This record gives sequence, C-alpha cells and structure tokens, in this order.
Amino acid sequence: MKCALFSGTVVCLERALVLVGILMLLCLNRVHVFALKSQLFTRRAANLHQHHHHHHSTQRNTTISYETHYFDQKIDHFGFLEDGTFKQRYLVADQHWHQEGAPILFYTGNEGDITWFCNNTGFMWDVAEELGAMLVFAEHRYYGESMPFGEQSYSDTKHLNYLTSEQALADFAVLIEALKSSMPGAQLSPVIAVGGSYGGMLSAWMRMKYPNIVVGALAASAPIWQFPGMVPCGDFYKIVTQDFARSGFDCAVNVKRSWQAIDNVSSTDRGLQWLSEEFRLCVPLKKKADSVNFKAFLQETWVNLAMVDYPYEANFLQPLPRWPIQVVCKYLGFQSNVSDYQLLHGISQAVKVYYNYTGNTPCLNTSQTATGNLGLLGWYYQACTEMVMPMCTDGIQDMFEPQDWNFQAFSDECHTMFGVRPRAEWARTVYGGKDIASHSNIIFSNGGLDPWSSGGVTRYISDSLITIMIPDGAHHLDLRYNNNYDPPSVLEARALEVKLFKEWIRQARKTHPESRHSKNIGNRATRINIG
Amino acid sequence: MKCALFSGTVVCLERALVLVGILMLLCLNRVHVFALKSQLFTRRAANLHQHHHHHHSTQRNTTISYETHYFDQKIDHFGFLEDGTFKQRYLVADQHWHQEGAPILFYTGNEGDITWFCNNTGFMWDVAEELGAMLVFAEHRYYGESMPFGEQSYSDTKHLNYLTSEQALADFAVLIEALKSSMPGAQLSPVIAVGGSYGGMLSAWMRMKYPNIVVGALAASAPIWQFPGMVPCGDFYKIVTQDFARSGFDCAVNVKRSWQAIDNVSSTDRGLQWLSEEFRLCVPLKKKADSVNFKAFLQETWVNLAMVDYPYEANFLQPLPRWPIQVVCKYLGFQSNVSDYQLLHGISQAVKVYYNYTGNTPCLNTSQTATGNLGLLGWYYQACTEMVMPMCTDGIQDMFEPQDWNFQAFSDECHTMFGVRPRAEWARTVYGGKDIASHSNIIFSNGGLDPWSSGGVTRYISDSLITIMIPDGAHHLDLRYNNNYDPPSVLEARALEVKLFKEWIRQARKTHPESRHSKNIGNRATRINIG
Repeated sequence: MKCALFSGTVVCLERALVLVGILMLLCLNRVHVFALKSQLFTRRAANLHQHHHHHHSTQRNTTISYETHYFDQKIDHFGFLEDGTFKQRYLVADQHWHQEGAPILFYTGNEGDITWFCNNTGFMWDVAEELGAMLVFAEHRYYGESMPFGEQSYSDTKHLNYLTSEQALADFAVLIEALKSSMPGAQLSPVIAVGGSYGGMLSAWMRMKYPNIVVGALAASAPIWQFPGMVPCGDFYKIVTQDFARSGFDCAVNVKRSWQAIDNVSSTDRGLQWLSEEFRLCVPLKKKADSVNFKAFLQETWVNLAMVDYPYEANFLQPLPRWPIQVVCKYLGFQSNVSDYQLLHGISQAVKVYYNYTGNTPCLNTSQTATGNLGLLGWYYQACTEMVMPMCTDGIQDMFEPQDWNFQAFSDECHTMFGVRPRAEWARTVYGGKDIASHSNIIFSNGGLDPWSSGGVTRYISDSLITIMIPDGAHHLDLRYNNNYDPPSVLEARALEVKLFKEWIRQARKTHPESRHSKNIGNRATRINIG
Repeated sequence: MKCALFSGTVVCLERALVLVGILMLLCLNRVHVFALKSQLFTRRAANLHQHHHHHHSTQRNTTISYETHYFDQKIDHFGFLEDGTFKQRYLVADQHWHQEGAPILFYTGNEGDITWFCNNTGFMWDVAEELGAMLVFAEHRYYGESMPFGEQSYSDTKHLNYLTSEQALADFAVLIEALKSSMPGAQLSPVIAVGGSYGGMLSAWMRMKYPNIVVGALAASAPIWQFPGMVPCGDFYKIVTQDFARSGFDCAVNVKRSWQAIDNVSSTDRGLQWLSEEFRLCVPLKKKADSVNFKAFLQETWVNLAMVDYPYEANFLQPLPRWPIQVVCKYLGFQSNVSDYQLLHGISQAVKVYYNYTGNTPCLNTSQTATGNLGLLGWYYQACTEMVMPMCTDGIQDMFEPQDWNFQAFSDECHTMFGVRPRAEWARTVYGGKDIASHSNIIFSNGGLDPWSSGGVTRYISDSLITIMIPDGAHHLDLRYNNNYDPPSVLEARALEVKLFKEWIRQARKTHPESRHSKNIGNRATRINIG
C-alpha cells in the first residue's frame, strides 16, 4: 500500500497542521477510493461554509455581530486521570435576546472553524429577532481554534484520543450549563440545539443524550443512519446520479461513460498529455496509474455538485450558477456514438463550471479542495473510529465505477494511518440506530437533492420526531439565509421549524421544575416516616 | 493527616486486592468522617447481599440455577487508543425463557461480586416464570471477577481510569446487543433493566441513555438525586434518626446522648478500658483520639440498621431479628437522668443486637464490615470521581454529631488517595439531575425506612416515570424474595412492577421497527428524486 510511505501515520501526522490536510489528501488519493468517500462529507461541507463566508455577504439581510469567548473545557469528560482543560471557542450574539428565560439557539459545531458555521447558518440569524433568542455557536474540539493540546493535538494517536462525538456532546452540555448559570437571566432559558450535516447529527444526539439540557433539536441534513447495516451503502451515490439524470438529457449516462473513456485515453502518453491539457491540470498526468486519482477527483466533484445544487447563484468552493448541475449537464448531452475525446471535452467543460465559473482559475489542482480546511484530518480520524459510514457503487444504479464497501480494508488503512481501528457497531449502540422512537422534540430535515439524505431520517417515527423533506433542497438548504430564489418548500420548512421551536419553548416553560434545589424534600422525608 | 502514611495511595493501592479493603478502612477511619459516609452505601449493601446468600436459602421458594459466561468487553468505550478487552462476567438463567422474542430481565450489576446480586435479587427469580423471561446478571467492571487489567486493575490511577458509570453502562449496552444478536430467538426480545441501590441508578440511567437497548427499567432504592445541590445533605441521616425515633421510646434521643457520653468516658484511661471491655472490642481503645473511630463505627452501625430494618428475621452481616431497630431500641429507653455508663451499657447491648445476635461473636471488630468486600475500594474511587454524594449532620434534626459537608476537603482527600479530584456537577449534567421528565418507562421504588430514599425519586414526574413508595420498606425490599412477613405495601409494589413490565413488553412488541436492515430506503430515495 503506497500510503505506507507515510506510515504510516507518524510521518503524516507530525507535520505542521497547515500541511496536514494536503498530505492527507495526497496520502488518501493513493489508497483505496472508498476511504476517500467518507471524506467527501466533511471536506465539501467545510469548504462550502468557508467560501460562502467570504463571497456571499451581499445576499445577507441580517447583520452578523458576535462576541468571541473561550471556555475552560475538560479534555476528558469520561475519565479522571486526564484532568486538564483547553480553551473551547464559542461565539455569542445576544442583540435580540429578551433575557429572563428567553430562548437560546445553540449551534453544535461540526468539523471545522466555528466562524464558518456562524457566518453560514443564516437561518439562525434570520429568526433570532422573532424568537427573542440568544445565538451561541460552539466550536467542536480539535477544530478551528479549539485544540485540546494546542499544536500537539494532532501530533499522535495519544493526543487524538479525546476526539470523539461523545466528548464533543459533553463539551456542549457542560458549556450550556455553565452559560446558563453564569449569564444573568439565562438560568431558565430553554436551549434548542441547531446543526447541519455532522453538526446536525450532533444536535440530534444532543437531544437524545442530554434532554435535560436542550429542549429540542433541529438536525438539518443529518445522516444519523449512514452507519453500517442501517441503509444500503449504495444509496448515497444513487442520489448523486439521480440529480444528474434529472438535470439534463443523458447527463448521468455520459458521466458514467467517461470512466472508460479516461481509461482508454490515459493508456497512452499522448492521451495523458491530452487529458492534462484539456483539463488544464496544474500537475500533468504522467502515467496510467495517475488516472485513478484523476477519476477520484472527478467523482468528488460530482458529489460536491450534488450537495450544493442550490436554486440560486452562490459562492462556495468556487462561484456557481443557480442549479449548477443543469449548467454542467448542458455540456454532457451527447448521443451514444460520441468519441472518447469528444466526451471528455464535455466532461472538462462541465468540471470547469464548478472550478472555473468566473474564468479566473489558471489551472485545475486536483487536490485543491483540501487546502485551508483544517477539519479534514480530524474528520478522517473520526471516520476511522466512530463515524463509520459505508459507501459503495455498483455502476448500474449509479454512474460511478463499481466499488464495494470493504470494512476490513478500511479498518486496516485506519490502523496504518492512526494506529486505531474503527468500531463498526458502536454508533448504533450508543446513538440508537433506527430505534429512536422514545426520543422527542427533534426535527430531521433533509433535501431531496442531497446525497446525504440517504442516511437521514426521512420516514415517520413518532409525532414528536418531525421529519421534513425539502424536495428541491440540497445539503441543509434550510439552514441558509432566506433568499429570493428559495423554493416554497424550503420556506415552508423554515416556517415549520420556527413554529416547532416556539412550541418547545412553550412546553419547556410549562414543565420546568419549579426550582433545581428543591426545598420540599426534607418535608417529604418527614412525611413518609410518620406515615 | 494520618492517612498520608499510606499515601498516599501508592502504599494503599499496591497491596493485593484482598487486603485493600481492610487497609482502606483503616486509612479512612483515620481521615474525616464525612469521607467515610459516602462509603456506607456500598459496604452495607454488599455485605447484605453476601450474607443473605449463605444463610438465607431456606426461605427461597425458587431454585437458583444459572450459567456463568465471560464476554470480551472493550476496556475503553470512549476512546480508541486503548483497544484492549477484558473478560466481563455475566450469569444467564434461561430455564423459564419462552424464546422467540420473550423478554430478558437484565440486572445491571453494582459495586460487588455479581453472584451476590444474582443470589439476592429474589424478585427476578420469583417472576421469571410468569414472564417467560430470561434472567441475565451482568457484573460491573472493576468488581468481582470483571477486572479490566486483572490484578493490576487497582494498582494505580492510570489503571483505575476506566472505572466510571458511563463505561459500565456502555458495557451493559454492548453486552445486550451481543447477546441479542448471538442467542437464537433473542433478536426481538425486549430487555428490561433491573437494579437496586447503585445498580438501580445504573438501571435508570441505562433507560435514559440507551432507550434503544432497554425498553424500561426498575430502579429500586436508587438515589439518583443524592448529588450536590439536588437534595439537602442532611436528609439521609434524618431518615436514619426517624427510624430510631419511631422504633422505641426516646431511642433516637439516647443515641444522640451517647456521643457526649463517649467523649466523657473516653477522657480517662479507666474510661477507655471500661468502654473496650463493655463493647468487647477486639482492639481496645488506647487513647482519647481512638474514640473518633469508635464513634464512626457506631454511626455506621445505626445507618446499617436503618438500611436493613426488614420486617422479618434475616441474615446479613450478622443474623438479625425482625424489625431489628425495635429490638435495638429496647435497650435504649432511658430517662434523661441516666448516667454515662448506664447509657453506654445500653448502647453496647444495642450494638450487639446487630453484631452478636447469635451470641457467637467473640469480640467486636470495629473495622470488620469491610472484610471480604472487594467493592469497597472501587466504590471509594467512584465516590471520588463521579459519585459525589454530599451528606451532613446537624445534631438537631438528627441524632448524630454535627458534621458539615465540605467538598473541598473531600476533594483534597480524594486527590491524596487516588490522584483524582471529584467533579461535583458532572452527575447532574450527564444524568439530568431533576430534569428527567422527557424519559419514560422507569420505575423508581423507594422504602420509607431506607435512608437512601433521601436521594430517590419519590415525587410525581410524569405518567411514564412511576414512583412507588413502600412505607414499611428498608433498602430495596421489593427486590428481595417473597416472604411470608412481607408487608402488603411491598407485595403491591412487586405486583405493580410486574404489571408495568408486561405493559412495556407489549409496547415494545407493538412499536419495534419491522426490521433493522430496512430495505425500502432505496425506493424512498428514488421516490423523492422523481418528485
């Protein structure tokens, strides 16, 4: 395994953090593709947020202003040997907060810099005034600035040991308790967890595991069922494929044809050169084996497009037109008798819709999506431990090359990279899998275009676990700012979400125990002993 | 602090396990009394079970027969650096199990040898046939034979690091999942958690944290509110006092007078000698300071009596008459003008009811209650980390010498002993404190005579959190075998418990998801993408 060059691990891991993402990508691109697949989720989501922040401020109709704080958080909530603390970053916006028991919307930060999520969860900013709510955005440990061991946090497996979702949830729980007890007027404030993607999973789990701390949760595009044995591993890529199939004539079919075309063309040096020039690759393809990386890069690009197939122009990794897959598909409407070169010319133009919509990109860097995203390595560690999300393709019901899900091979890679092995069944055991009916006050919203809806909760479970399907929505569209081009379905979704928030807040006010430090227990004890 | 002799820790901890209990007690008796108080819970409960096992078989109306198994359990469920396993012991009795989805009653083992709990939770054996239930008794890690690091488990703070209630709950969850998937006919079996005392707390928490795994829980005499800020720290000893006050004329008053009498008498060498002879102490009191230990021993004895104040003759630490406190109080009915020596003669006779009912005890060993109980050190570690249970006395509303709850001093002792510090707020954060209304299917049963009812859930919370008060019951009387002398209240309690078990089982059969590996997700994905 070529990755053993890094090895493993030690070489990979001891680099400075800034370099780690790139190294990892290089590393990953040279191992099995299925390992990469678990990555897509994060990398894309994080990039999406990062770039929206920089380019999209003109569409905001709400002013963002927050204070940055740091909380002394326990490094280990589940053991007492390690009693140290680290600075967990969190952002607070209380301009609209009505105090005295008014609600708190608490973003359960995911695998990235919390300011990205803060700046890109426009929904929370849009509804703060109506709810009189305080907004809190809490950073997930091991991401952004919230490093348990500073620059050593990623230095080895030992330091990575406290990077788990359970620790992150405990961070949120402890932080909320501390905020409520220290902020005047917040003691009786009902807290609602909000999150998207992995952050949405954390929101749902927060309500499941700490219903004493959050009265409800909005889990947007949260694939809490994308774990072994819960959903077919091929559904994710099926949805990607369907997005392409419905966005243009023979669009998915031609993507599917492209893999063989690439194999054909890259079998000669001339072909490799042609490909490198046609796609304007920053690093030309040198040998046939390079085409494996190249195809993985394309596959990621199609997935990415499916996740951000929004109904309006938006800036993400690169600026994109509205309904970008429709634009992409305009270049892919070939008949079946097209030549490999013609087909790949179309693919090249399609890809450039994504990477070079503005025309300013000098060359295509097939590993560029990882740069600047510090969350990549962390998420990969999480995928290699708890967040085991099987994905597979069969080339029949999807437009990709067949690739089985092979847990053992995945586990071996994880062991090589991090010295840890994933626990395939743990997520089900600890977070309930499909047996979640006893929980309450969770909204699971999903987008019909979003491949991550494959692992989302989209069927009826109970009256207090609300599922919302946004047929025209991509990845957590509902968490974004209101936009003039929003389809009615997402507006309805947001309205329902706010309505449910208000219900939970009412509920909480009604059922909150009179006082935490109940004074009547003494009397009770007396009573029962007389009786 | 005299305990620094051991110290700390290292000397205490590096002894063989068999000696550790005794050493600890010696150690503890020489530190503050309030540290000891947290111990009582366990030590007494465990002894209670141990001895019942040996002496009480004649009252059984159900045959006990089980198989002993060992499960390869992860040492650390919440981190991936430590990937080792240990052998967790569990006992299975399936004589009455109807298979094919018939229920499993799962005892969530507490701080002691699981065979004690198995042999002394007669309730489960009594109802197995009626329910067609399998019985499983799972041992708590770090107790009995379930040692994560074999004989090294208690060797230092590092090895003790995995002794937490969260790890224990995860053990139970993983074990149940494994049993259900490996035992033919058990896959759809609803599991009900059952436990008493700390085991009852674990049962309740099991349902709270893993409602996907247990459909309900019977938490008998489970003081889940005996944590900082939840109940007044003096309630526990108030109940002990009330038990004495109602069991004989001026009984509590004379216990209260005894402390000063001991101080008076032990101020002279002659007095110390008299005390040693009067109480037939194995180790005579040598100096005034020894009276501190002696008083702590008496205080523990009164607490112990309150916990086991059962309505029928029973064998625990020593054989006891029915309503033992009434018998004890026959020796304590003095008028106020009694002399110190007369009073202490009464105390001596009262104590001997507890320690020498059979007349075979040659001398009173004031540290004997710890012998043979391997759970002592483990529970002390737990009290020094998560299980912070404040207790205090004021000498006004109770019959004891005033003793404040001093968290800082407690924390300092813990640090000296184990190198860890307790986290006073964690139990509330992780287990919900009084905010447990969103949970369901938990029975909290408590005995009106049981001092631990001070921290129990005894007031109405919701229709699916059922509180049962057994006015004439001591510590988890309802979990014991049926007995001809059982008061009607405990028979009613058991009947209600069985009725609720049956309801939960019915519920579970109705709401269980058709299949875990749902096959219609693919179709769903297709549907939403067409729409």
